[in-house]
Amino acid sequence: MYSFKNDYAEGCHPKILERLVQTNLTQEHGYGEDSFTLQAKKLLREQTNLPQAEIYFLSGGTQTNLLVISSILLNHQAVISAQTGHIYANETGAIEATGHKVIPVQTTTGKLTAAAIEQTIKQFSLRPHVVEPKVVYISNSTETGSIYTKSELEELSVCCRDHGMYLFMDGARLGHALTAENNDLTLADVASLVDVFYIGATKNGALLGEAVVFSNATLAEYFDYNLKQKGALLAKGRLIGIQFMELFTDSLYFTLAAHANSMAYRLKEAIGNKGYSFAGDSTTNQLFPILPLKLISVLQRDFDFYIWQEVDEELAVVRLITSWATTQEAVNQFVAVLNAFDSI
Amino acid sequence: MYSFKNDYAEGCHPKILERLVQTNLTQEHGYGEDSFTLQAKKLLREQTNLPQAEIYFLSGGTQTNLLVISSILLNHQAVISAQTGHIYANETGAIEATGHKVIPVQTTTGKLTAAAIEQTIKQFSLRPHVVEPKVVYISNSTETGSIYTKSELEELSVCCRDHGMYLFMDGARLGHALTAENNDLTLADVASLVDVFYIGATKNGALLGEAVVFSNATLAEYFDYNLKQKGALLAKGRLIGIQFMELFTDSLYFTLAAHANSMAYRLKEAIGNKGYSFAGDSTTNQLFPILPLKLISVLQRDFDFYIWQEVDEELAVVRLITSWATTQEAVNQFVAVLNAFDSI
Amino acid sequence: MYSFKNDYAEGCHPKILERLVQTNLTQEHGYGEDSFTLQAKKLLREQTNLPQAEIYFLSGGTQTNLLVISSILLNHQAVISAQTGHIYANETGAIEATGHKVIPVQTTTGKLTAAAIEQTIKQFSLRPHVVEPKVVYISNSTETGSIYTKSELEELSVCCRDHGMYLFMDGARLGHALTAENNDLTLADVASLVDVFYIGATKNGALLGEAVVFSNATLAEYFDYNLKQKGALLAKGRLIGIQFMELFTDSLYFTLAAHANSMAYRLKEAIGNKGYSFAGDSTTNQLFPILPLKLISVLQRDFDFYIWQEVDEELAVVRLITSWATTQEAVNQFVAVLNAFDSI
Amino acid sequence: MYSFKNDYAEGCHPKILERLVQTNLTQEHGYGEDSFTLQAKKLLREQTNLPQAEIYFLSGGTQTNLLVISSILLNHQAVISAQTGHIYANETGAIEATGHKVIPVQTTTGKLTAAAIEQTIKQFSLRPHVVEPKVVYISNSTETGSIYTKSELEELSVCCRDHGMYLFMDGARLGHALTAENNDLTLADVASLVDVFYIGATKNGALLGEAVVFSNATLAEYFDYNLKQKGALLAKGRLIGIQFMELFTDSLYFTLAAHANSMAYRLKEAIGNKGYSFAGDSTTNQLFPILPLKLISVLQRDFDFYIWQEVDEELAVVRLITSWATTQEAVNQFVAVLNAFDSI
Repeated sequence: MYSFKNDYAEGCHPKILERLVQTNLTQEHGYGEDSFTLQAKKLLREQTNLPQAEIYFLSGGTQTNLLVISSILLNHQAVISAQTGHIYANETGAIEATGHKVIPVQTTTGKLTAAAIEQTIKQFSLRPHVVEPKVVYISNSTETGSIYTKSELEELSVCCRDHGMYLFMDGARLGHALTAENNDLTLADVASLVDVFYIGATKNGALLGEAVVFSNATLAEYFDYNLKQKGALLAKGRLIGIQFMELFTDSLYFTLAAHANSMAYRLKEAIGNKGYSFAGDSTTNQLFPILPLKLISVLQRDFDFYIWQEVDEELAVVRLITSWATTQEAVNQFVAVLNAFDSI
Repeated sequence: MYSFKNDYAEGCHPKILERLVQTNLTQEHGYGEDSFTLQAKKLLREQTNLPQAEIYFLSGGTQTNLLVISSILLNHQAVISAQTGHIYANETGAIEATGHKVIPVQTTTGKLTAAAIEQTIKQFSLRPHVVEPKVVYISNSTETGSIYTKSELEELSVCCRDHGMYLFMDGARLGHALTAENNDLTLADVASLVDVFYIGATKNGALLGEAVVFSNATLAEYFDYNLKQKGALLAKGRLIGIQFMELFTDSLYFTLAAHANSMAYRLKEAIGNKGYSFAGDSTTNQLFPILPLKLISVLQRDFDFYIWQEVDEELAVVRLITSWATTQEAVNQFVAVLNAFDSI
Repeated sequence: MYSFKNDYAEGCHPKILERLVQTNLTQEHGYGEDSFTLQAKKLLREQTNLPQAEIYFLSGGTQTNLLVISSILLNHQAVISAQTGHIYANETGAIEATGHKVIPVQTTTGKLTAAAIEQTIKQFSLRPHVVEPKVVYISNSTETGSIYTKSELEELSVCCRDHGMYLFMDGARLGHALTAENNDLTLADVASLVDVFYIGATKNGALLGEAVVFSNATLAEYFDYNLKQKGALLAKGRLIGIQFMELFTDSLYFTLAAHANSMAYRLKEAIGNKGYSFAGDSTTNQLFPILPLKLISVLQRDFDFYIWQEVDEELAVVRLITSWATTQEAVNQFVAVLNAFDSI
Repeated sequence: MYSFKNDYAEGCHPKILERLVQTNLTQEHGYGEDSFTLQAKKLLREQTNLPQAEIYFLSGGTQTNLLVISSILLNHQAVISAQTGHIYANETGAIEATGHKVIPVQTTTGKLTAAAIEQTIKQFSLRPHVVEPKVVYISNSTETGSIYTKSELEELSVCCRDHGMYLFMDGARLGHALTAENNDLTLADVASLVDVFYIGATKNGALLGEAVVFSNATLAEYFDYNLKQKGALLAKGRLIGIQFMELFTDSLYFTLAAHANSMAYRLKEAIGNKGYSFAGDSTTNQLFPILPLKLISVLQRDFDFYIWQEVDEELAVVRLITSWATTQEAVNQFVAVLNAFDSI
């Protein structure tokens, strides 16, 4: 049984384990003051072209989202998100639990636009009877696998600046976005266009770890306190520091993401060749093909994946995810089963 | 420079790394549903003699404290803690940030007593103008290195039951408590006397990880939701599961803690032999000797440790911590410098 | 200039002031333990036919909504509301500020249905990654002036019971609902069909005051603590007690609401007679006529009201509200201006 | 039975009721935009000598404390209070419920000093493991009836400014403080020495109402949003505006407080003349005499008051409170019973 359920089914890239073994008994300072963490921050400041950025390492996406957003917002302020955004749809009300409304915006693409933000601002104008939208939350790649182009991100960046809002990018799958075939953004572009973003490694080769980069360093003034207060400050910060040190040496992070995408593209091509269509327009490592229920049954004998949504009595959307660890063999096998399926 | 600053200066016990390497590419379910986590829970249920316990794995002490307490308390309820308790003194208001008052109780030993709890209940009786004390928080070992005896814990347990309160033990250093020379509690005793406790591994051989054991399983009814909502649910739960699997195989956890204690005892004996006294009566891996400032200066050339509190112009309390990784050599060196010191 | 902007432009019904004057120097217990409050509770228990109900008096709608909802929900639970619901649209994120998500449901009528609730429950089923919907919030009359029929409320009541959810009715304008021409609910019906509701008086004759009635008294177990903790417990509870005592003597509350409705009906009839249509189907004291901008300009010379929404270059929705204090003369004048308007 | 239990046993000063009656049917804007509220703000700006102050009217002390503090503090910040401070001792954890720690300071007088604040700052210096003390909360008069002198308040003001902290005065009984026989502060002095304070009227002649004055107007930037979000914005703000308009016309507020104090002084003198001592050194309307239990029993036949604390088998501290409404006759009667008591 091979799993295409998610991109966190395996451990981590072997280089990371090697380095953990190598450095294991070195004594280091606690709480992220260790030499590995400092080195990882140095690498990220260089590769984002942001020498002044404030950088912190966290354990997972929900933790990062709630910490960044709750540390930036004042009591009466809110965050705008696509209705499909992870903070709105999949995090057990984590943002609301910190006291802030998430304002959902309907989209067909999973992506926000300046027009949608401006309309939302208008809807929330009857001060003080409504919240003040202050952060715009976007994911890249999005929860449906789509990505932002450079011009789209520039437009959002200008819109946020014009309205005194902060632009925050959830990069749980940033590697997959930046190595997608239709991507025209660099890591430095992202860093220059948003106020704060994170580089997700849990879903791209690490055991755990998200690197929050505050391009707008003033937003990080008290982030250390918030980290500790919310229980996110690891005693052995070295664990995440070492992982980012490895991932951002020799572009390992991007190599891994590109591999995940390329595995997805093979699946996508094979599925398309069989004449099936897709829900959404993913160019990254998440695919949402619409398949016959009979084919799904056949595939389920050998593969694990989510049935995402029932379409009708004959069809359903499934979600297939590839990762840094997805093997060529598994993809070949999947394609073979697919191709062998005769719908008649 | 050798560090006695804390018990999280090194990585983890080598057996853990070996197992991480061995299992690295096995595909597992996410979010703590992996086979390692299930196996670790099985081991803990056996060793606590609590077949029905609900068990969860978290990343650190502050996270665990705030999650357990905030998931148990209703809005108007509060937690009682020694004034030296970690939740009162060292966690950046993490409990208050979840909306709950921590009621401090002055102690000389770092330990709470039934009498102190009953007095606190009386002080908080003017409903609804005061909070309702509902959880009693204790640490074992305490923040000053002391431990609870079986009769002390029984007394607290009865007191809490009588008053409809929950007894919660912070076991960030539970291993050190249960292997202390003057300890008469077993892991199963603890499990039977408290409502919920945790077994800390971050400070005893793991990269990160605390195992929360709900003896009173009804208190855990919605703990999974709370975990996710507060950003504490790791995608790769296997990382902590594997560590507890290793630590609770062949009593590794207790062997490591006993080592830390024995290293502390050598330091304690040597310091005592030189005629220095201690602040507090620690029998675990944290020592608080009162040393001449001149000796401190000499020690600081080779060793790193905290100056805890100034006593007068000539003396200060320092904190020395040993761990599973503390070497015999380092202890010997420390003792040699100590013995070579001539105060005249 | 006469205002139809809201139903809180005047003070209170003169009988209330008379009673305040009469009782002013009587010494009474504080914090809602006064004899007037006790008497008001007695009247409400009789008139709701709920001898065991727990009743509390609060100062306003937002305060009541946030207190009821936050005192009922556990951390991970959420409340379902129509997208037009006051808690979703107009209370500055007050519910979210207590840590809970408000799940919006699109409606055309401002009213929730069992079908909508069941669909929402299905959408929020991926435990623990989503919140647990636990309270259903409805307003009667709704924010658009519509009301629930007895069968609609029964259906919601059954649905909530079947799913272990609590049904909470915001009755900021309950009087107007229960005296609407198409109403078939009694106060006792409401009381028997919901778990908790409130009877709003701020918008129906009082200086301030909402009476929360917990039909399901177990939900009120700790409401007193919550009241105090959120700053809602008035030292001189008599102020609200006296008002409810007066309003629920000789049905004054319903007489006042019926007056407000009848004033609205005259406006509605006159507007309809002129051939204008309405946004929404209000049968209570809020009207949303769609009027020519030119007529609006003419009306604005003598009357104050909100322009609710622009429709196109010639038309806009306005909101007209009548109240217990609206005079026949003001309504006649408005109708006269309306009738004198010649659209050509 | 006459009550000396508190200063909110009666309604309000008759002038207020007269004005409520007089203005009752005038149409006014809602939410504190009415003409009475604007006029009351004008009076307060003049009498505090703070033309730029931001002023808001709230309903009670707990509500005001929690709103001011939670709107000023960032997530990781805390408030320092005397252990006897109302926010620490008597408000059901209201501040903690907004997410902030209250740091208690032991005092013998109920008053904070610069020295105590500086010591607290030192104790909370291990960033980020501890909260950042940011607001100093004082009450004037204090919960034990004592008052701050001008030099004491100046010292606190300088200390707070030096440390970048905000000074907040709870003035629930400010009138009684400023009219105490040993007072040397004016309202304008208070206004110039603190960042924010409130003028309590609930306990000095109003039905309800506290006026928050932000001397440091920048702290009020988003207070309107916070007011609404916490359910403290009254639809009919006129109710409190009218009361402050009356109380700050012809110094009624101070006349009423001076009356309360003078009634207390008569009691104090009579009790002292009988040879009884007092717990604490009150010069305002709260007295804490230490009386024989037998005398207490006799007094309880005719008077209602709190037994504050048992001293030993023969003595207890009681609390006697006078108010704007306390009658000469009641005081005379109390003194008569007292004088008639023969302890043998």
